[in-house]
Amino acid sequence: LIIIPGPSSQVLGKKIAELLKTETVTLHYKRFPDGESYIRLEGEIKNKSVVVVQTTSPPQDTNLMQLCLIADAARNHGAKKIIAVIPYMAYARQDKQFLPGEAVSIKTIANMLSANGITQLITVNIHAEQALKNFNFTTKNLSAIPLLAEHFKDKGYTGAFALAPDKGATKYAIEAAKILKGEYGWLQKERDRYTGQITVERKKLNVKNKDVIIFDDIISTGGTIVNAVKILKEQGARKIFTACVHPLLINDAQNKIIQSGAEEIIGTDCVPSPVSKVTVAPLIADTLKTLKE
Amino acid sequence: LIIIPGPSSQVLGKKIAELLKTETVTLHYKRFPDGESYIRLEGEIKNKSVVVVQTTSPPQDTNLMQLCLIADAARNHGAKKIIAVIPYMAYARQDKQFLPGEAVSIKTIANMLSANGITQLITVNIHAEQALKNFNFTTKNLSAIPLLAEHFKDKGYTGAFALAPDKGATKYAIEAAKILKGEYGWLQKERDRYTGQITVERKKLNVKNKDVIIFDDIISTGGTIVNAVKILKEQGARKIFTACVHPLLINDAQNKIIQSGAEEIIGTDCVPSPVSKVTVAPLIADTLKTLKE
Repeated sequence: LIIIPGPSSQVLGKKIAELLKTETVTLHYKRFPDGESYIRLEGEIKNKSVVVVQTTSPPQDTNLMQLCLIADAARNHGAKKIIAVIPYMAYARQDKQFLPGEAVSIKTIANMLSANGITQLITVNIHAEQALKNFNFTTKNLSAIPLLAEHFKDKGYTGAFALAPDKGATKYAIEAAKILKGEYGWLQKERDRYTGQITVERKKLNVKNKDVIIFDDIISTGGTIVNAVKILKEQGARKIFTACVHPLLINDAQNKIIQSGAEEIIGTDCVPSPVSKVTVAPLIADTLKTLKE
Repeated sequence: LIIIPGPSSQVLGKKIAELLKTETVTLHYKRFPDGESYIRLEGEIKNKSVVVVQTTSPPQDTNLMQLCLIADAARNHGAKKIIAVIPYMAYARQDKQFLPGEAVSIKTIANMLSANGITQLITVNIHAEQALKNFNFTTKNLSAIPLLAEHFKDKGYTGAFALAPDKGATKYAIEAAKILKGEYGWLQKERDRYTGQITVERKKLNVKNKDVIIFDDIISTGGTIVNAVKILKEQGARKIFTACVHPLLINDAQNKIIQSGAEEIIGTDCVPSPVSKVTVAPLIADTLKTLKE
């Protein structure tokens, strides 16, 4: 097993290699003035199982393209097997046809990866587990929610309320509550598929004078979290934290969330960001170890 | 045959459909705040041959991704055959391994297109014809150089000198000279593959007191053209024009070229730009007509 830390996951890729005490391939990459990516691998790849670590947070399309370039180059240079570690999986929200005529984007991505020699995928908290049905090769979806919950437990927040900002995130709140040994709950959010308009029901939660941690997989523009923080404050919550696996934090999401009254945002290095204080390196390394044996 | 004008070639796609008097499919597309593309097709596609017109100029990766999303959606909705018209083909300069360990980027792209159901490619002046060997399906490479030469002929520049700014572009100068009925020549340019450093030999050309038109496939940052204009001015050329099929015009390329002393830049709508005054719609329509019959 050798590791290629891709351009979007250089630090995480190297951490995983250190934990596994395995070699890395030196990657020469650049972008030409017109925006095209260039990839060159330096190292012995022939007959080896290669793990490419490349997250696909924004710029998603460029990160996906670089992943395909690396995989195809590794295949051309005789790799025996190519495993992609994609900590944040882009396009996973469009995992089926919601309206007639729609592209099932995650299937298109799966086709691209497969066509460039990838035969195994390891990802972390993909937005919808069912998205993995679109891949015609082995996939493994890990959860970093326990790592986030442990982070808060270590800081002394045992017993905090775990909140899912919408019903789809309830599974994360349940996972976290097991470790935090507190209650959990969720808010009801509706999205109009044509207009994109979001409405949140102002549901009664048992959060008065309690510390609350909001758990979600992705924080994108932060709108969902800001809504949740508002409702929690109205209902008398004490300290409010927000935890996510994938801190995309588009535009001024970070400021918006802090200004709405949250104490802190905690994310993982699935997506490198200023709030990525929890690392998924051991989680991924442990999974790769089982492949090694 | 029905046409889907892709997001990057809306105008050209519609022109081609008008010339062919054929239907178009309405395309709903947007980009989410995080940068992901969304695609929905509206129209009857089942059992039809679909032509997707989508250029892949910058942002190349996003335009390629949208092309794959459209093709895959068309396939899912029962298209009989999917033909891609990619007026500007991205990544065609990395068409073989120049250094050990390099990705052959155009092969990676070919894999992606094929995996998403595209079985035929029509492109215009791909940077290197040999790049097409990497496609495992039918390809056709058209030349828009005659259209550019005709444009100058119509403006009264019969007899102008056709210059290739490097040896690889000589074929374009020859093609243009046949129509302009003047001389042609080329400059010698060397690129160091490791440093990217470019050197141009100051070759003697028979251009004194002559109008000169520089012909190239791509104008990217404009460095090559600016060099050529300088040499032409030193050698006493009269008016200097610059013509290209693909006016990428990265950063301030347009200003740089005009300030170096060129009268005008003329490009085609293979890449929409302020200088795209020559349309390739009839060229592409004529080619599609032969498929129809």
